[in-house]
Amino acid sequence: MNRVVTTVVVALVLAGSGSLAIAQESAAETQNKQIVLDFYEKVLNGKNVEAITSYLGSRYTQHNPGAADGVEGFRKFIEFLRKSYPQAHSEPRHVFADGDYVIVHSHAIRDPGTRGSAIVDIFRLEDRKIVEHWDIIQPVPETAANGNGMF
Amino acid sequence: MNRVVTTVVVALVLAGSGSLAIAQESAAETQNKQIVLDFYEKVLNGKNVEAITSYLGSRYTQHNPGAADGVEGFRKFIEFLRKSYPQAHSEPRHVFADGDYVIVHSHAIRDPGTRGSAIVDIFRLEDRKIVEHWDIIQPVPETAANGNGMF
Repeated sequence: MNRVVTTVVVALVLAGSGSLAIAQESAAETQNKQIVLDFYEKVLNGKNVEAITSYLGSRYTQHNPGAADGVEGFRKFIEFLRKSYPQAHSEPRHVFADGDYVIVHSHAIRDPGTRGSAIVDIFRLEDRKIVEHWDIIQPVPETAANGNGMF
Repeated sequence: MNRVVTTVVVALVLAGSGSLAIAQESAAETQNKQIVLDFYEKVLNGKNVEAITSYLGSRYTQHNPGAADGVEGFRKFIEFLRKSYPQAHSEPRHVFADGDYVIVHSHAIRDPGTRGSAIVDIFRLEDRKIVEHWDIIQPVPETAANGNGMF
């Protein structure tokens, strides 16, 4: 996995009135990142429908306009992937966390050998379960105005 | 501005060996968010080419495949917006920070009255200057499979 951002607690500052630690990332944020990356690997890439309930909450608010709402809607999406694109794979390139949110910037390829799409998924977690999801999807174009790539 | 996530230092935990503060967001992350939101308002929405140098570093690595690299490429993009879409406006809906990165999920409308696009911008900052940018852009569709909207 290239360039996954794994910022952890780095800064310790001693304040006048006692010891004060300024953490760039809380333990909960680190844990949320790992939960989402596991979910990516087991559910999204592994297409394991049975594993869904380990990661999603009892409700799952879906903002992807192409997907039905709720846990059942997501289950149908994974079944669709398993049937229609069994080799589909999403490779996280950046992973960020801020409070209850985890943001994943990934390169998704449904058919091996194609350029695929750049995707940002935003997940909101409650009590270590994913309860809400937004995403933005853009196909990787054949040519670009700069040589830096989309990732 | 709706639903902008402004997570700040919230958690104080006393550890056994002394006072330990676990911050969900460092002062630098809070400052980076504000820099990017100011940049959004003054440069992107205000289309103020002169303000660019206040926010961008001496180099600006561009990953948007439609935009030329560097500060000069970005200046040309703002001039294009000012000339072709003078009423273009991007409304941040979520703003996240993680280390040197700020992520903005926004609703961009170039022509008032149109549905516009959902965009995620990812900015990397060094010394309070924006030095690298990725984005993903998806038009808001006319209909959706759920009633939650894209934001």
